[in-house]
Amino acid sequence: MKRIEVIQNILEANETIANRNQQLLDKHNVFAINIMSSPGAGKTSLVLRTLAKMKGRLDIAVIEGDVASTVDAEKVQSEAKAVVQINTRNMPESCSLMAAMIESALKDMPLDNIDLILIENVGNLICPSEFTLGEHKRVVISSLPEGDDKPIKYPLIFIDADAVIINKMDLLPHVDFDIAAFRRSITGLNPKAEIFQISCKTGEGIEKWYSWILGQIEADAAGQ
Amino acid sequence: MKRIEVIQNILEANETIANRNQQLLDKHNVFAINIMSSPGAGKTSLVLRTLAKMKGRLDIAVIEGDVASTVDAEKVQSEAKAVVQINTRNMPESCSLMAAMIESALKDMPLDNIDLILIENVGNLICPSEFTLGEHKRVVISSLPEGDDKPIKYPLIFIDADAVIINKMDLLPHVDFDIAAFRRSITGLNPKAEIFQISCKTGEGIEKWYSWILGQIEADAAGQ
Repeated sequence: MKRIEVIQNILEANETIANRNQQLLDKHNVFAINIMSSPGAGKTSLVLRTLAKMKGRLDIAVIEGDVASTVDAEKVQSEAKAVVQINTRNMPESCSLMAAMIESALKDMPLDNIDLILIENVGNLICPSEFTLGEHKRVVISSLPEGDDKPIKYPLIFIDADAVIINKMDLLPHVDFDIAAFRRSITGLNPKAEIFQISCKTGEGIEKWYSWILGQIEADAAGQ
Repeated sequence: MKRIEVIQNILEANETIANRNQQLLDKHNVFAINIMSSPGAGKTSLVLRTLAKMKGRLDIAVIEGDVASTVDAEKVQSEAKAVVQINTRNMPESCSLMAAMIESALKDMPLDNIDLILIENVGNLICPSEFTLGEHKRVVISSLPEGDDKPIKYPLIFIDADAVIINKMDLLPHVDFDIAAFRRSITGLNPKAEIFQISCKTGEGIEKWYSWILGQIEADAAGQ
């Protein structure tokens, strides 16, 4: 019982900080997207594609979450307005970003010069579903080689997603993946989730993702 | 501080139960292998291949760990001597199997009729590295589509591995993966780890894995 209670406290504390983060972001008209996936599903590739496409249109900052290393931050550094790398290795929850980590990262960011923050969460389909960060939208990437059963095995992260991206469509001829079955699983868990089929490698289908981002930012600005 | 202390207690308690599990296994001459990977890297495929190959030679039981669903247990059921599915969804650590879960599973198994237990951990490169289960050997699968940087980003799980399997070798022509770089990363973290390059889909390279298992069981029996 003690353990559960402590976790409950952590989740509540996280929620409070996440709300504070979102207020800060809204004050500066910054939109934030939390990008989650298994390791190697294509989070960094999606961030890189989005940075390149939006250049001159949106000023984008990136927060990179990883257990260790700065390899992803190095990859996005040249194109992003600002980059903060968070290494969770010695933190209480090493398997996910938490709102307090984002709060620290935001302190280092020129929020008045940023339109959008892409938050690349730690590669994990379980822990990140528990911790909101203050983001406006939650996106889950699932890649073809992982198999079409991921929503059945890891339902929580898909239930809370605003959008689900099926990545690595270029590998479709080489792997066993039933797209219709995957889409049915998502729709069963979360009928409101947008689903995109893309390849970050070839660019296939990715225009719809760009349009979705722009639409979300516009809707958010109109609502404020 | 309180949180850390609780985690410390959990890790210590886990270690105690893990030791008890291993004693029980040793008493019945059962060898156990803990198989860990990202979601969709090929744990179930490796288990299925191993069950098929060892038929008539080793009696194998399987413990399946997943957040939700019984899809993997259903897949292995016909070939395994015994199968237990553990769903971690509502457990204190939903992102990994823990020793206490294995202890419960072992109670349902005909240990005197089993030579080997393959434990398929929850798909996750972070949490399972913290919890020993009582296994004799730890194996990590990394698949080509995940990219060659996984040991750099998730070092702990590779540091403690007895063997690292590079799976989905059949996809090599279609993805960017530097095998030499990956092998260098593993050797840098853990020079003693055996490394296998296999395809569970085509069977490429998998004979070495079978030989390794048989060698480990033989060495363990000789040592007792």
